[in-house]
Amino acid sequence: MSSNISGAVDISFLHQLADLADAQTLSRFRTPIDVDAKYKEGDKFDPVTDADRQAEVAMRALIRERFPEHAILGEEFGSEGDGDFRWVLDPVDGTKPFICGIPVWGTLIGLTHKGVATRGMMSQPFTGERFWADADGAWHQRGSSVERMHTRRVDLSEAILHTTSPQGYQGALAEGFARLKDQVRMTRYGGECYAMVMVAAGHIDLALEPALQPYDIVALIPIIEKAGGVVTRLDGGRPEIGGPVLISGSAVLHEHALEILR
Amino acid sequence: MSSNISGAVDISFLHQLADLADAQTLSRFRTPIDVDAKYKEGDKFDPVTDADRQAEVAMRALIRERFPEHAILGEEFGSEGDGDFRWVLDPVDGTKPFICGIPVWGTLIGLTHKGVATRGMMSQPFTGERFWADADGAWHQRGSSVERMHTRRVDLSEAILHTTSPQGYQGALAEGFARLKDQVRMTRYGGECYAMVMVAAGHIDLALEPALQPYDIVALIPIIEKAGGVVTRLDGGRPEIGGPVLISGSAVLHEHALEILR
Repeated sequence: MSSNISGAVDISFLHQLADLADAQTLSRFRTPIDVDAKYKEGDKFDPVTDADRQAEVAMRALIRERFPEHAILGEEFGSEGDGDFRWVLDPVDGTKPFICGIPVWGTLIGLTHKGVATRGMMSQPFTGERFWADADGAWHQRGSSVERMHTRRVDLSEAILHTTSPQGYQGALAEGFARLKDQVRMTRYGGECYAMVMVAAGHIDLALEPALQPYDIVALIPIIEKAGGVVTRLDGGRPEIGGPVLISGSAVLHEHALEILR
Repeated sequence: MSSNISGAVDISFLHQLADLADAQTLSRFRTPIDVDAKYKEGDKFDPVTDADRQAEVAMRALIRERFPEHAILGEEFGSEGDGDFRWVLDPVDGTKPFICGIPVWGTLIGLTHKGVATRGMMSQPFTGERFWADADGAWHQRGSSVERMHTRRVDLSEAILHTTSPQGYQGALAEGFARLKDQVRMTRYGGECYAMVMVAAGHIDLALEPALQPYDIVALIPIIEKAGGVVTRLDGGRPEIGGPVLISGSAVLHEHALEILR
């Protein structure tokens, strides 16, 4: 573990954070929940649940206790602190599938060093899975089984493309998405962060999202990269700041898909 | 149990069939699989896996042994036999999420009596869940916990709509789908049969599919109906023959949605 870019944070600390989040999210999954509708650009409905809030509160408290010098950015409670290390948290990524009872949501826990994602974890407590990246690679755990993840290498015509929703594409990006759909083997919807870790696991090849926030993507960046994949903004820049983002199983596929999208 | 319409079939027999299918499907989930592309109307890609074939073979063998007088219709091997009772099997409903590594696929096991669905089960072995209906109600099992399912009663403006893919809607149905999307709280994609049982469980309110085969829907009909929901073709007729099908959490919501779709 290279402490210069990981802030002496061991992956076991990310598991501790995920344990705290799991306790708040899983206990509320498929129970009647207090849904607060809030409205965001291009979206009719974005529920924020107690699960979201309580999980973030619990994770923030443990981070402050153990790493008081680190900054934190979370979906629910915004930004606090400053410094080279910043935790980027989405307690329930995929609140829509969460309220639909479909276990493709996850808790996202990322760590950046000077703006670059260096550690990441996704926890899906209903299926009992964790996906993470450390300095050595990208990993999938279920029960006592931990396996290294690798992306798959396929040509565009054999690729499976995922996007969470066909809504949200407009103008040139809608045209680019339509062109890309025409050239891949198939296009799937609705998988949220679960589909993105399936790129790392080698079951999906491309994941396109038109408008991500930093907390939607930071935790997933090391997981994709350490599995052999590539993730950038559509302008080719680093994806930590969010925006329109493409995830690919290989650099060749990424360049090909970016060309088509532009 | 009313043996006149259930053919003296106990629900434990459906669990036995599901056990056989689970052994064939779960062992192949997320492993490199032999995907045979076949082409269907409106669909670029419909993989058929070994899991599909082997699960259907195993279920057919047990049905023939225990109920040799019953007919069988399955996705992979077509129709055999005749008589008042017919098993309707889809060993892997949702082959696309299956190959994407996303656990929203399921094994569908239905029984019809003179064309009307009387028993049904959906098994999702990765999440360890079964959903079924017997004469007493609709049930969800995970581990040792078995709970009765009930649909939710909401107005259209509060309803969550699901459809597996935005592709496949054409002409008047595309227009109807667009109108319906505009009036519901939100529209979700990609959930396959898993989203349909979430209508029974009261987490989703409407599930629309433009073109189902009998084996895609028969097993789900008793599950929806016994949970308090309604499922018909868009022309209002019984859904056992497939076609464009709407599932709703309540009769009032169903009528309202059908009006908008027409």
